[in-house]
Amino acid sequence: MKIGAFGEVMLRLTPPEALLLEQTHTLRMAYTGTGVNLVGNLAHFGVESYLLTALPDNRLGDAALANLKSLGINTRYVIQKEQHIGTYFAEMGYGVRPTEITYQNRKNSSFGLAMITDYAIADFVETIDLVHICGISLSLNEHSAEVAIAVAKTAHEQGKKVCFDFNFRPSLNQEPDKKRVMKERYQEILPYCNVIFGSVRDLSELLEWSMDVSSQSAKIRSFQAFLSHYQIEWFAGTTRHTTDEKKQLSGYLLSPTEWIETERYTLDSLDRIGAGDAFAAGILLGYSENWSLDRSVEFALGNSRLAHTIQGDVPLTTRKQVDQLLSHPTIDLNR
Amino acid sequence: MKIGAFGEVMLRLTPPEALLLEQTHTLRMAYTGTGVNLVGNLAHFGVESYLLTALPDNRLGDAALANLKSLGINTRYVIQKEQHIGTYFAEMGYGVRPTEITYQNRKNSSFGLAMITDYAIADFVETIDLVHICGISLSLNEHSAEVAIAVAKTAHEQGKKVCFDFNFRPSLNQEPDKKRVMKERYQEILPYCNVIFGSVRDLSELLEWSMDVSSQSAKIRSFQAFLSHYQIEWFAGTTRHTTDEKKQLSGYLLSPTEWIETERYTLDSLDRIGAGDAFAAGILLGYSENWSLDRSVEFALGNSRLAHTIQGDVPLTTRKQVDQLLSHPTIDLNR
Amino acid sequence: MKIGAFGEVMLRLTPPEALLLEQTHTLRMAYTGTGVNLVGNLAHFGVESYLLTALPDNRLGDAALANLKSLGINTRYVIQKEQHIGTYFAEMGYGVRPTEITYQNRKNSSFGLAMITDYAIADFVETIDLVHICGISLSLNEHSAEVAIAVAKTAHEQGKKVCFDFNFRPSLNQEPDKKRVMKERYQEILPYCNVIFGSVRDLSELLEWSMDVSSQSAKIRSFQAFLSHYQIEWFAGTTRHTTDEKKQLSGYLLSPTEWIETERYTLDSLDRIGAGDAFAAGILLGYSENWSLDRSVEFALGNSRLAHTIQGDVPLTTRKQVDQLLSHPTIDLNR
Amino acid sequence: MKIGAFGEVMLRLTPPEALLLEQTHTLRMAYTGTGVNLVGNLAHFGVESYLLTALPDNRLGDAALANLKSLGINTRYVIQKEQHIGTYFAEMGYGVRPTEITYQNRKNSSFGLAMITDYAIADFVETIDLVHICGISLSLNEHSAEVAIAVAKTAHEQGKKVCFDFNFRPSLNQEPDKKRVMKERYQEILPYCNVIFGSVRDLSELLEWSMDVSSQSAKIRSFQAFLSHYQIEWFAGTTRHTTDEKKQLSGYLLSPTEWIETERYTLDSLDRIGAGDAFAAGILLGYSENWSLDRSVEFALGNSRLAHTIQGDVPLTTRKQVDQLLSHPTIDLNR
Amino acid sequence: MKIGAFGEVMLRLTPPEALLLEQTHTLRMAYTGTGVNLVGNLAHFGVESYLLTALPDNRLGDAALANLKSLGINTRYVIQKEQHIGTYFAEMGYGVRPTEITYQNRKNSSFGLAMITDYAIADFVETIDLVHICGISLSLNEHSAEVAIAVAKTAHEQGKKVCFDFNFRPSLNQEPDKKRVMKERYQEILPYCNVIFGSVRDLSELLEWSMDVSSQSAKIRSFQAFLSHYQIEWFAGTTRHTTDEKKQLSGYLLSPTEWIETERYTLDSLDRIGAGDAFAAGILLGYSENWSLDRSVEFALGNSRLAHTIQGDVPLTTRKQVDQLLSHPTIDLNR
Amino acid sequence: MKIGAFGEVMLRLTPPEALLLEQTHTLRMAYTGTGVNLVGNLAHFGVESYLLTALPDNRLGDAALANLKSLGINTRYVIQKEQHIGTYFAEMGYGVRPTEITYQNRKNSSFGLAMITDYAIADFVETIDLVHICGISLSLNEHSAEVAIAVAKTAHEQGKKVCFDFNFRPSLNQEPDKKRVMKERYQEILPYCNVIFGSVRDLSELLEWSMDVSSQSAKIRSFQAFLSHYQIEWFAGTTRHTTDEKKQLSGYLLSPTEWIETERYTLDSLDRIGAGDAFAAGILLGYSENWSLDRSVEFALGNSRLAHTIQGDVPLTTRKQVDQLLSHPTIDLNR
Repeated sequence: MKIGAFGEVMLRLTPPEALLLEQTHTLRMAYTGTGVNLVGNLAHFGVESYLLTALPDNRLGDAALANLKSLGINTRYVIQKEQHIGTYFAEMGYGVRPTEITYQNRKNSSFGLAMITDYAIADFVETIDLVHICGISLSLNEHSAEVAIAVAKTAHEQGKKVCFDFNFRPSLNQEPDKKRVMKERYQEILPYCNVIFGSVRDLSELLEWSMDVSSQSAKIRSFQAFLSHYQIEWFAGTTRHTTDEKKQLSGYLLSPTEWIETERYTLDSLDRIGAGDAFAAGILLGYSENWSLDRSVEFALGNSRLAHTIQGDVPLTTRKQVDQLLSHPTIDLNR
Repeated sequence: MKIGAFGEVMLRLTPPEALLLEQTHTLRMAYTGTGVNLVGNLAHFGVESYLLTALPDNRLGDAALANLKSLGINTRYVIQKEQHIGTYFAEMGYGVRPTEITYQNRKNSSFGLAMITDYAIADFVETIDLVHICGISLSLNEHSAEVAIAVAKTAHEQGKKVCFDFNFRPSLNQEPDKKRVMKERYQEILPYCNVIFGSVRDLSELLEWSMDVSSQSAKIRSFQAFLSHYQIEWFAGTTRHTTDEKKQLSGYLLSPTEWIETERYTLDSLDRIGAGDAFAAGILLGYSENWSLDRSVEFALGNSRLAHTIQGDVPLTTRKQVDQLLSHPTIDLNR
Repeated sequence: MKIGAFGEVMLRLTPPEALLLEQTHTLRMAYTGTGVNLVGNLAHFGVESYLLTALPDNRLGDAALANLKSLGINTRYVIQKEQHIGTYFAEMGYGVRPTEITYQNRKNSSFGLAMITDYAIADFVETIDLVHICGISLSLNEHSAEVAIAVAKTAHEQGKKVCFDFNFRPSLNQEPDKKRVMKERYQEILPYCNVIFGSVRDLSELLEWSMDVSSQSAKIRSFQAFLSHYQIEWFAGTTRHTTDEKKQLSGYLLSPTEWIETERYTLDSLDRIGAGDAFAAGILLGYSENWSLDRSVEFALGNSRLAHTIQGDVPLTTRKQVDQLLSHPTIDLNR
Repeated sequence: MKIGAFGEVMLRLTPPEALLLEQTHTLRMAYTGTGVNLVGNLAHFGVESYLLTALPDNRLGDAALANLKSLGINTRYVIQKEQHIGTYFAEMGYGVRPTEITYQNRKNSSFGLAMITDYAIADFVETIDLVHICGISLSLNEHSAEVAIAVAKTAHEQGKKVCFDFNFRPSLNQEPDKKRVMKERYQEILPYCNVIFGSVRDLSELLEWSMDVSSQSAKIRSFQAFLSHYQIEWFAGTTRHTTDEKKQLSGYLLSPTEWIETERYTLDSLDRIGAGDAFAAGILLGYSENWSLDRSVEFALGNSRLAHTIQGDVPLTTRKQVDQLLSHPTIDLNR
Repeated sequence: MKIGAFGEVMLRLTPPEALLLEQTHTLRMAYTGTGVNLVGNLAHFGVESYLLTALPDNRLGDAALANLKSLGINTRYVIQKEQHIGTYFAEMGYGVRPTEITYQNRKNSSFGLAMITDYAIADFVETIDLVHICGISLSLNEHSAEVAIAVAKTAHEQGKKVCFDFNFRPSLNQEPDKKRVMKERYQEILPYCNVIFGSVRDLSELLEWSMDVSSQSAKIRSFQAFLSHYQIEWFAGTTRHTTDEKKQLSGYLLSPTEWIETERYTLDSLDRIGAGDAFAAGILLGYSENWSLDRSVEFALGNSRLAHTIQGDVPLTTRKQVDQLLSHPTIDLNR
Repeated sequence: MKIGAFGEVMLRLTPPEALLLEQTHTLRMAYTGTGVNLVGNLAHFGVESYLLTALPDNRLGDAALANLKSLGINTRYVIQKEQHIGTYFAEMGYGVRPTEITYQNRKNSSFGLAMITDYAIADFVETIDLVHICGISLSLNEHSAEVAIAVAKTAHEQGKKVCFDFNFRPSLNQEPDKKRVMKERYQEILPYCNVIFGSVRDLSELLEWSMDVSSQSAKIRSFQAFLSHYQIEWFAGTTRHTTDEKKQLSGYLLSPTEWIETERYTLDSLDRIGAGDAFAAGILLGYSENWSLDRSVEFALGNSRLAHTIQGDVPLTTRKQVDQLLSHPTIDLNR
């Protein structure tokens, strides 16, 4: 299966050694974004991977493009226009000090300004077998929302699989009217989708879907009603647990007939940003290769745990690494 | 004399060791801008210096503010609102390879979005004796142009000195209508001004002022007609000369009655960005301390030559350094 | 309340990535010291903050001054004379390997050589409402001890609040006679003080104050006798606990009538140097704003826990950060 | 025209800031080689570019591959086997201090060990229109020589263009018998070639071709006799001149009927390694697009001059940059 | 006692901050190897230490030599010939992500190519009192195996002590015949040895020695039979334990009459490579100074635990550091 | 000939990339000093080299010692006591901006505090054949002056050669009385000396020796009178020339009967600090190997020119490098 993603490429700037912005004159530079993370990771799994996005038509766009290529992503459908790339600064936390993300102008980025007519959507959809769309495209601005929905619709109509990641950030969508618009956009895209990444809160708060969480079985029934309603094949996500003095992570994956939840694994986290995308990449690998739910979610969670230990957003993991973690979890040195 | 400036603070990101963006994952981070460069340099000369500007209300704004303070700039009139700082990347050139500047979104920066009502203009003008305004404020967008003109007008009315730097970049002003608007804005601000930084081209192309350059004396007469028209006290600028295989720099300064031009000095340049602001800072120091034109322009050009040898935009030069260069130009080691 | 501190500024040099001095040719440079840490932190809390100190009259002094300004410290009372700054190297430990601090000449630093007549003590005391004095000034040499006592006395006489930090390092005071001198100096300064940072050991070993630690209530009575004797309002400190394989920290604060001790918090420590000063800054914030003892010590300890997670000595924490830690202790990512 | 190259990928390790190996614990890492440099540069000119090579089947091979992709090179014909990559250390010189290159084991590299049967030579040749072969392949060892000759022969037979770069290093070929073998190998490959990069010394010393250099016209006649003999279309090279205290570079290009030599340009050199490959890339661009000899050699030399100003071997130049240098040679800042 | 080692010097290249090779252009460079680690550590303990090895006769060899000297190793018996140094890349792991070691060509290194006649074996053995030989020399190739056995034999015959470290890596010895050859070589060297570092698996798998591990006493009896057979004085090693979510380490040391095993210490590991050599260095210190088994193994394990917290392979620990860990294990800051 | 030096080891801290102290948080660390530079360079020439000095008895002293060893210096006579190492910061200049050296406390360094009884002077002198003494020892303080004179006297009495470098810095010796004391100390040491490094100004200003510079022959006569007076064998030095826009360097060497002066070589200087010591090392090599004056001074000046192109003070040049510069001055790349 050839897999493509539609999503923004961002520039990430990170002070070294967990320093604060005031403490250093040096930054580490990387190119990232949900789509990049996902198809970059899939390319490392050996999947032929494509990205549909817009980069600036300047030296930053050139550098971003070189970086996408180095990840093994096919960049045939990446366009270059306008002059701005969405940027964020990540001051890495430590212990009780949280990581601080500071976003710079995204709405006026090349991706934010790109119109539906700028992209070769039909060709892109023709090329790939499955497309991943990030929910942030729905909330960034009207242009990106329009493209996202068009990509989903076109793919669905051509019999291609569609995967959608809720990725809903309430903080970015605080105007009351915005919330209504967002719900409509999400409702518009869901009928085209085969695989969904989301959470109880996404369904209940954003979509106002009735979720009964009084018991585990009630919760599963609520989820499966949602799946039936939109004819969704797979629904997956991760849960973070904070007990005592440790952080843990588990994953779940459900189909209309099955519910699989992993055990909770303790995290020793170097950089958790992008680790959710690693989970998604694992699930899509299983989906595209017809793995069982069980195998898929275990692989995906192992991949996500490894992604927590890699600097930066893009999960540079391979199948071999994930398989080794699952089969020999205590190895700490490969010679 | 207390000197203030109105201008944008930008984030500058520079790859180390003249590397290209594709060749490194590391950037050097600094905060800069014509106003910062000017009052930062004046603070190093011992002048009480103020900046009127708008920074983001986030961690980047905090870091920028810390940086302004470290330069010795009084930041009482710096406001923090919105979320974006104008940014540029400087890939440093070498030999025949030019330095490449790539700007990221400036129009939607905190500075670009700040309204006239956001600033404490009256208090700022009351505090200072001379204000410097950068021409880029006139071309950035309507908000910044409105503030720039208001600052100049208020200062003029209160008997404070006004200094204006043409800083006109044709590349940023290419729409035909834009050019007409710009000319009107420049014509509106000039009557308030005492000191101007500019060039023949600025007067002839932007203002369509009739400049006769058929002879040196004709050129001087044209300039002095301009000074008379707008009742300007000092007009200054630098000229770059490229002869054979070397780059040279000279400076000029004229009053309604005098014309001084320095000899041409060969440049051994490490980073020329900001060197024009160093010249301006030198001229303003002479102006504020009632130096002769001759002393002022020699000091200013020496300061600018030193600024070519300092990494980054902000000229961190001191009076002692400039004086040593002028009196002992061959010293290359101070123990 | 305006808060000032009298104390030494030191240059700190740290190898990157927990390397040893033999393993690297690169050092990270920062400017630090109890006074810097304290008023730098208070400036981040929005308090108008001053430092009374002496820096070298050379490029290192210039660089130190720029750094103090960037922290938001008002440097009006910082003098520059002589040529030397006290320096220390911090080889960061890891796990069972302790951090190694190597001091370079402090007695002959600009601070150590500055005389009482070099400082504008009267103006400084006039400007501020509360002054913090570090006990190291009493042990560094006669000059610094004389200034420290004069500052405390002048402040006390003018009705300003005085805060004193024992900061007694037995290793620096090993000659028998030195110990007697130190006791006399401490006894001389205590009557001027309102707030004290110290420990049981400081009182019993240095001052030879009779401390009954046979029970918690006996210990509190001993402390309160000490407070009564010197008419001290607040006495505070932290305690480190090592149980099993974890390090924990608690804080205490007592007034003549109250005793508050926090619970023990587990530390995940990146750099503990300066974390004691963060506790002091928190206490002084509470004191200067008339908070309850309870609120003050919880805030101070939260601040100190955050300081353990920040590279370098100076706690760059804000009220918002500390409040978030106290109210939402498990958040590890702010977007 | 699609252009491919057969050649070794090497790891280059460079101390920063012109430091010696004993002076630093840090190295800059890059992947390079004549073939990489050439097709990497052509990819930046917009040419569809391929590399035929062998990389280690380990993490270093993975990293090298990611790097080739980032240059825009199509890596379909890159194989991964064995465990070693040829490596060199470049201690950058300065002024009178020469750059020192230290090679590590190349003969046993994955490239050196790869057999003719490991490569998909037929498919590779089928895909491309012109292939570039580096002379080092002929001297590295028997395996690489066999592959190089097979690639040239196959391409010639299929009517594809063949370009060969003498790249003969006497220092690597000092055994007497080795010299005879080398001459035979060079004689074997030349009949398949359309474009040659070489020098007078290559022809006279290596091939023992009779070169009459008593006059410019005699030299040209000797060259053209060589071209006739092997039915070569273009022959090109550069000449370094050291006069007084400056270094200069000129280029030449001849066909059976024409001889073009550029003027001498003064070099301001940051890193000359790879600049010869930049010249070759420029010539091949002209050849593949049917430019005149004059335009081709001027473009190629401009490209090579720019390559002298870029850190590392790979010339990351674009057509736009070269065109700007040729048309506006004094521009030193692009905003 | 003067202690010498025979073993390979390798170049280690490590990306900073636990980055992967694809994520950085910067590497940290160090020189290492079992022999270097061991005698480098012993030199830090104040022991006169020698290394018998072969380095390249080029700039890398020069840099390696400077590095050995800086460790305090006497380099009189280090020869320089050939052009290649064995190299490995260490991508540091984190949490569940294992450290990845990638070796580059070792068989053709200067050490691998050095012949028995290249070394001054007799003089070397004459100079020292105890020699350490690393088992890797037996498996690298015939040349190094021949030298290793000759060194052991010569030392034994001259009444010098011989220490041998099994250091057997099955992964490097996978051909069936290779295994037989290896067993013979190990059997050939053992009769010359006084001190052995190894494990149950080394004895049972490599030597096919009958090891009864059904009970602790049976295991000890098996070991002691081995010691009797080869007249070995001391046999030592460490054991890694993975329980729950922590890693632990214990050490053992046995003589023909005693068996000492330490408790299990939890590891907080920064870089475990070389920590086994630190254990060996501690044992040899005890052996050479006639310490009790108990004191020796406790010191050795403390040394190894510290080595886990030091970047790089070479344990730069001192006696003072180890003694402090054993006597005051909770100190985390030395001022 | 075995050569030793008596002199201070200093810590040098240098911001990267010609940045100013305010512009970076990173410093490059090295250990240096006239004695280190000289014997470090001689060790690279293959001379057995010793240093007599005092380092701190702490981690900085340990690191300095490791660094001396890495240069190949025999450190048997280096003592460790006290806690402070003399330090200087070098802000590297560029073009017209001079390099700025900022010294930190030297008088109270371990070297400054070491007494004559701390050193094993007799053993040191016994070991070596020639000793080099730096004039700074005479001006640092009484302790170091006493040791310097004692070393010279002891060596002279034992028939060892003594070399003395005036190294007189008027700026460090400005008190009138100091000047008289200095003259006496210089006069005291000169009778013991065989080789002197100095200048016309040293003789005329410091020693008030009558120098007739009205003509070249008069100047030579004045010098030779000085040599006769003190029975000095060789007197050498360099002269800097600044003509037009270039810097040049020449060297001279005279014996009682000969005067040799080199031509002026243009400098392309990366770091001139330590280049005078490189000249001295070259002269001493020639002296110790009985070269002609001509060969000695040409080698020494070539060595000094190379030292100008090496970062840091210590000239890491080899005979091979110097010989190549003298015989093939235009080679800029060694493969």
